[in-house]
Amino acid sequence: MERIEQHACFGGLQEVWKHSSSTLSCDMKFGIYLPKAATQGKKCPVLYWLSGLTCNEQNFITKAGAQRYADEYGMIVVTPDTSPRGEDVPNDPAYDLGQGAGFYLNATQQPWAKHYRMADYIVDELPALIEKYFPANDKRSLSGHSMGGHGALMLALRNPERYRSVSAFSPIVAPSQVPWGVKAFTNYLGDDRATWHQYDTVALIQARHPSTPVLPLLIDQGDADEFLEPQLKPQLLRDACQLAGYPLALNLRTGFDHSYYFIASFIGEHIRFHADCLK
Amino acid sequence: MERIEQHACFGGLQEVWKHSSSTLSCDMKFGIYLPKAATQGKKCPVLYWLSGLTCNEQNFITKAGAQRYADEYGMIVVTPDTSPRGEDVPNDPAYDLGQGAGFYLNATQQPWAKHYRMADYIVDELPALIEKYFPANDKRSLSGHSMGGHGALMLALRNPERYRSVSAFSPIVAPSQVPWGVKAFTNYLGDDRATWHQYDTVALIQARHPSTPVLPLLIDQGDADEFLEPQLKPQLLRDACQLAGYPLALNLRTGFDHSYYFIASFIGEHIRFHADCLK
Repeated sequence: MERIEQHACFGGLQEVWKHSSSTLSCDMKFGIYLPKAATQGKKCPVLYWLSGLTCNEQNFITKAGAQRYADEYGMIVVTPDTSPRGEDVPNDPAYDLGQGAGFYLNATQQPWAKHYRMADYIVDELPALIEKYFPANDKRSLSGHSMGGHGALMLALRNPERYRSVSAFSPIVAPSQVPWGVKAFTNYLGDDRATWHQYDTVALIQARHPSTPVLPLLIDQGDADEFLEPQLKPQLLRDACQLAGYPLALNLRTGFDHSYYFIASFIGEHIRFHADCLK
Repeated sequence: MERIEQHACFGGLQEVWKHSSSTLSCDMKFGIYLPKAATQGKKCPVLYWLSGLTCNEQNFITKAGAQRYADEYGMIVVTPDTSPRGEDVPNDPAYDLGQGAGFYLNATQQPWAKHYRMADYIVDELPALIEKYFPANDKRSLSGHSMGGHGALMLALRNPERYRSVSAFSPIVAPSQVPWGVKAFTNYLGDDRATWHQYDTVALIQARHPSTPVLPLLIDQGDADEFLEPQLKPQLLRDACQLAGYPLALNLRTGFDHSYYFIASFIGEHIRFHADCLK
């Protein structure tokens, strides 16, 4: 494991690390913000941020302005890449398939199955590494944007015992029902739609056993988001949660779009929300 | 004049505009953040932010996280490009000369003299346009980073009656004495070093008449800045200000480097400083 960037930022340190991932069979980068408390050796809780299509570990750390709040609340923020990477890793020229578009699942189809195991990487390998090598305790939360919002919601619902809270900005809540998700799931998981439900937030809410733990769940969605109707469809999750009696805080934000200007405007509220749950 | 981007951001709007500049004889873009007060039609003061080498109007608006504070204090923030642009504008393959490296002066040498008139553009043309077409009053302040810190300090000292305050992050304070500045000034202004002093902050402080107005002046400089010794040399400005009796607040920040992580960490303090002066 090698540190490739380190910058003082607010009271702590923004770093970028590179490591060899056994789950993904390739080298991976991740960003990690260590608040002042962590740089002084105190074990801190960890928020994992999952980015959207075309992003890597850089977008959130350079654009969201989250470090100020993470430092204030003593929270580590880990920002993985959005897919396996490298010349040996299968890719596709489209922006919404292959590298930069891992969809946070474990692929079963060729040529993707060997490397595209982002679900296992995010839930197991990366937290194990973070909790071994950094001053992190085992309190974890998940958040993300767009494809990463899908990843955060879906992975939290699949593994509620692993997380304290989950939030998302502009998430793809029903990938099985929208073009981005149908394309990705067809390629990564094959044509049998029954296999898609395990990675679809709305389907997971619908299939959820009432005895499984409920996680605090916060979503922010801009009403001027250019992808709102064709790809995101938050009303499908609102309806599913209502039917299942699953508590959901869904804020529709007037005038906000799909960009990091939206995330920056409300990331402080999300960090506070997670900080309350991670206490 | 054409609006090419508009994003809700905190309580206001982050916009990017394109216009035809008569000073620079080319099309130019600029960013403008309109706080909530401005979107409601209230005339607000304006902070002009000058970016560094290789930057354009995007860097500050996507990375500094200034919008939160500008909204809080009711301040418009205008972010011009760092040079004239376009296929018809002379350029150089190096990152520190030509497009992206205008150094905020009026060039006298060929092939630069026609387009490279950033001093006039920043001080006259751009404020006239902002105050005509946006809800801006005539209270102005200047700030910037690195080459843009040089621009902010130098233009404020040349035009103290036009501004209420000036600040800088990691500025080039003595371009006549460091490699970046010597290269740029030789190309844009020629070999006669006497012509350089009018664009050199330290030389302007040294040559300043005691009766000219004094502007509140704030500088932040990281002590882990990779350009500190070869290019920035803040001690030259500290010594010149001491000798001239010019008040200077110079903060040396332990562990911070030359990046936007540094700017983001202290931009809130700079915005507050300017807000106090712009009241």
